[in-house]
Amino acid sequence: MKPTPSHLAYVPFVSVENMMRLVNATGPERFMAELAGYIEEDFKRWPEFDKTPRVASHSQDGVIELMPTADSENYGFKYVNGHPKNMREGYQTVTAFGVLSSVANGYPILFTEMTVLTALRTAATSALVGKYLAPKGAEVMAMIGNGAQCEFQALAFRAICGINRLRLYDIDPAATEKAARNLIAQGFEVVKCASGNEAVEGAQVITTCTADKQYATILTDNMVGAGVHINAIGGDCPGKTELHKDILLRSDIFVEYPPQTRIEGEIQQLPEDHPVIELWQVMRGELPARRDAKQITLFDSVGFAIEDFSALRYVHDRIKGTDYFAPLDMLADPDDPRDLFGMVMRAA
Amino acid sequence: MKPTPSHLAYVPFVSVENMMRLVNATGPERFMAELAGYIEEDFKRWPEFDKTPRVASHSQDGVIELMPTADSENYGFKYVNGHPKNMREGYQTVTAFGVLSSVANGYPILFTEMTVLTALRTAATSALVGKYLAPKGAEVMAMIGNGAQCEFQALAFRAICGINRLRLYDIDPAATEKAARNLIAQGFEVVKCASGNEAVEGAQVITTCTADKQYATILTDNMVGAGVHINAIGGDCPGKTELHKDILLRSDIFVEYPPQTRIEGEIQQLPEDHPVIELWQVMRGELPARRDAKQITLFDSVGFAIEDFSALRYVHDRIKGTDYFAPLDMLADPDDPRDLFGMVMRAA
Repeated sequence: MKPTPSHLAYVPFVSVENMMRLVNATGPERFMAELAGYIEEDFKRWPEFDKTPRVASHSQDGVIELMPTADSENYGFKYVNGHPKNMREGYQTVTAFGVLSSVANGYPILFTEMTVLTALRTAATSALVGKYLAPKGAEVMAMIGNGAQCEFQALAFRAICGINRLRLYDIDPAATEKAARNLIAQGFEVVKCASGNEAVEGAQVITTCTADKQYATILTDNMVGAGVHINAIGGDCPGKTELHKDILLRSDIFVEYPPQTRIEGEIQQLPEDHPVIELWQVMRGELPARRDAKQITLFDSVGFAIEDFSALRYVHDRIKGTDYFAPLDMLADPDDPRDLFGMVMRAA
Repeated sequence: MKPTPSHLAYVPFVSVENMMRLVNATGPERFMAELAGYIEEDFKRWPEFDKTPRVASHSQDGVIELMPTADSENYGFKYVNGHPKNMREGYQTVTAFGVLSSVANGYPILFTEMTVLTALRTAATSALVGKYLAPKGAEVMAMIGNGAQCEFQALAFRAICGINRLRLYDIDPAATEKAARNLIAQGFEVVKCASGNEAVEGAQVITTCTADKQYATILTDNMVGAGVHINAIGGDCPGKTELHKDILLRSDIFVEYPPQTRIEGEIQQLPEDHPVIELWQVMRGELPARRDAKQITLFDSVGFAIEDFSALRYVHDRIKGTDYFAPLDMLADPDDPRDLFGMVMRAA
């Protein structure tokens, strides 16, 4: 007699195809705006989370990381790799998947692709931070680095901050062409630029999002004028930064989780006691956001586990009652929990 | 136009049903003997691994852990929970799943259930260690705690150490009945015992495998005679031990990975500098296994990530060319890796 797994054995699985269906049915801008709401909600209850820096396994060509976090109800983690050379070989630089579980019994309640979802949550986080830090009335964003993250950033900043004019630059003109094509189709006003210097002209927000795993200088000090908000996405692992140190010294630096950002972010260039401002305190109103029109604000984004947790919560809520998932037989569920062996034998 | 994911997007998934098919097609004893060979191979190249203690998230009712490790070729991790109260509510105390990836590009190459697989690798490891430490000619094993792990231990010790006579005891007689029924069906000579004292009579190997998350004394000092090998499975998280401290002081203690065992194993009862013997050095022949017929040897088992890595390697090798897996669409794979956004839009 072959046992039929009970409902306890099944975990809802959101494949890449189903994630894309969900995003398209929702619309990417609404998806990211709603997701930003979940992220903001979780940042505002920051002290409730069990936080730990990500667990990274570095190799010559890249890194594989596990990013766990939990509140009293749910546990979530993301698996994510970062391999800059992948793109040249036809693979994604970053792929990811994740799991949300019940803290009460340890059982997974959602297993989902997170390559697409990470792009969405990264952009949603940037734009959420932009809502607090971008100068009033910002309309123009420079985007340096026009890879896989670029369009998501643009849409999120439009949905959440109202930015509709983009100035694009990438060392690879084909990347800029690709991003411009996609973004014009989305109704943006796009200027393709021949240099980073040209891109930042007249921009109130500067997004840097390049992929090389090395100390780079995407922005030099002279490129950053007073009053700008810098959204620095690409400096996100040890040895990888994008901004000249002098920019950091002129900026107020906002971070997700200091113990992780000091290792992985732009501020790895600074002494360990350099002051930073924690975004959860800004969102709770405990610390000021942008103070004045001259201040240079910098979001030193590295991506923190709580953002993935919010994304897992959002997807878990969104798929209820839909067919954007398939049940996956990934948990053993014997009739008698002590009789795992009997279950295996009876399956013969 | 709806894109069809390329082969890069698919990861082989071994469901619980397929794992059971694989185990039954192989035979559980051959499966564990072969798996023990993989574990031994990996213990013998211990210094090659990137090791870290597991990342645990503790809550009132249990723990959720991630156990990563890597060599230069593969990265593996296991998700596993431990919730002693689950059994009373019809859930498994322990459920698990795991992933094996390529270090070169970070892409997963296997996603598998590991609830059944963990039971098999835990037993395979115990019996492998038993091969080095059990007294010569051992025939009788006492098994205290007759839960989900019990039968796997018995079969592994028969396959690897030749033990065919079992003395079972559990505080719950129904657990002993269940284990006895299963093990008699597997051809073992089984004695059901009314106490731990009775179970250890004449046993050369004592396996303790209970599930309570608390300091317990399953074995008292007087129960352990000269020459015995103790296979202590259940003491595997902070605050959970099974043996009286005096037994530890009379034993030579063999462990997997001292930084983890000192936190989670029986030796959490001892000072941090109490000497322990690392099993990988024993398997490499750098340190002696059992020295004489009077020595009490203790395997203070907590379960280490490398054993899961070996199990993932074994399953990955075994499913090649079979139908014991299904391809899972869990990785985004755009035609142009930089055009993740375009892939999402074209899926509409």
